[in-house]
Amino acid sequence: MSERPLILVSNDDGITAPGIRTLVDAVKHLGEVIVVAPDSPQSAMGHAVTISRPLRLEKTNLYGDIVSYQCSGTPADCVKLAVDKVMHRKPDLLVSGINHGSNSSINVIYSGTMSAAVEGAIEGIPAVGFSLCDFSYDADFTLAKRVARKIASDILSNGLPKGVLLNVNVPKIAESDWKGFKVCRQANAKWQEEFDERQDPNGRKYYWLTGKFVNFDQGEDTDEWALANNYASVVPVQFDLTAHHAISYLNTWNFADEK
Amino acid sequence: MSERPLILVSNDDGITAPGIRTLVDAVKHLGEVIVVAPDSPQSAMGHAVTISRPLRLEKTNLYGDIVSYQCSGTPADCVKLAVDKVMHRKPDLLVSGINHGSNSSINVIYSGTMSAAVEGAIEGIPAVGFSLCDFSYDADFTLAKRVARKIASDILSNGLPKGVLLNVNVPKIAESDWKGFKVCRQANAKWQEEFDERQDPNGRKYYWLTGKFVNFDQGEDTDEWALANNYASVVPVQFDLTAHHAISYLNTWNFADEK
Repeated sequence: MSERPLILVSNDDGITAPGIRTLVDAVKHLGEVIVVAPDSPQSAMGHAVTISRPLRLEKTNLYGDIVSYQCSGTPADCVKLAVDKVMHRKPDLLVSGINHGSNSSINVIYSGTMSAAVEGAIEGIPAVGFSLCDFSYDADFTLAKRVARKIASDILSNGLPKGVLLNVNVPKIAESDWKGFKVCRQANAKWQEEFDERQDPNGRKYYWLTGKFVNFDQGEDTDEWALANNYASVVPVQFDLTAHHAISYLNTWNFADEK
Repeated sequence: MSERPLILVSNDDGITAPGIRTLVDAVKHLGEVIVVAPDSPQSAMGHAVTISRPLRLEKTNLYGDIVSYQCSGTPADCVKLAVDKVMHRKPDLLVSGINHGSNSSINVIYSGTMSAAVEGAIEGIPAVGFSLCDFSYDADFTLAKRVARKIASDILSNGLPKGVLLNVNVPKIAESDWKGFKVCRQANAKWQEEFDERQDPNGRKYYWLTGKFVNFDQGEDTDEWALANNYASVVPVQFDLTAHHAISYLNTWNFADEK
């Protein structure tokens, strides 16, 4: 690479979150960094994009010499706008996060952090989402920053296979307890929803989404196992959702009877 | 199955859309149908769930004898609320749609219709999303209704492999031109975004998302090929996003150097 690498940074917790500030710090020595992130928290937005209203995109001075924009849309909108209106060429790397809270196992589906990374990968940009398994605003990002720097640097050196991005989660532990990286698969787990039913002052019901995380998967090759055993989990993720193994089974259905 | 099958119907275009009314008609003879759908359009919501505000869930009389609720949340919220608060037992089938517009190839990632079906599959419910490749409100759903009835009936008879749901798209053609079903993979395609930049009455810029669909994939085993050749496309979809083929490659990275 003759030019300095061009690195796009986004997230879903919003441009002022400590996690994205840490991520900018972690990668700024690796190339030219540009930040395009939501102007408000967008957690659990999945891969939503905004089609029914227009978007705003405003320059900020939050990052000193580093060019930064805040956007009124979702994480996927931020990446689309960045690619079309902000970046002077296709970025060499997209890093998203560092999310305040886990995006391991099934959380990858709901995650705004990962949707920014997925959108980057769809654009053909090597992409990674980072998450720390600690929801608090004051979380200790020391280990997560070290992990982010190493992975970002590795992706710039090695590239990623076509159609593959990374989902990296960091356990909530002291750096001294860290055992290293573990390449994993997504654990088979889900959220068992338990809506909290309440009444408003007018006597009408409303519901808050709550839930408990249920892990059905005891495999030692999963991200949940890695995190529970003090590893940072590295899961390769794809946006081809085809269940290729099910195609031959479906061809045994009697579709020919119809038509 | 000794009881009548229990069928949950949802969508992303909202509970009053012609597409969901058609879908209810298509499946109501197959079992006990319950409708839980958004109270307003939720297209392109991806797999968003609502965590920062409470949800409303109101009974409607839109479907006569068929129990129906409208929900203020996303398609994934509708399914979560239905499972936790509405259904008296786990449904035997979840059908989502019929979407006004295609959800083939990469659209599966952005689709609210498919997110309802994915949420059902995560819950262990056999699930399918139906889409007609015609955005108009007055679209002709004759063929789509026939397709939906056949596939819904087949899933009730045959079940689906664990962790697999179906993404079924129907071309915009006359029923007489229909060539039948084709089991496919998701085509490798993307949206090339082109944001439309405008000025508001106060002189500030805003952006509308527009784009053009680009198909990189000439494979005759893809959903795009099937639809262009007058077939209904049937793509098995999974919510394990792990790129299993990339795990061995990532293990060649020098992770051991770090820690």
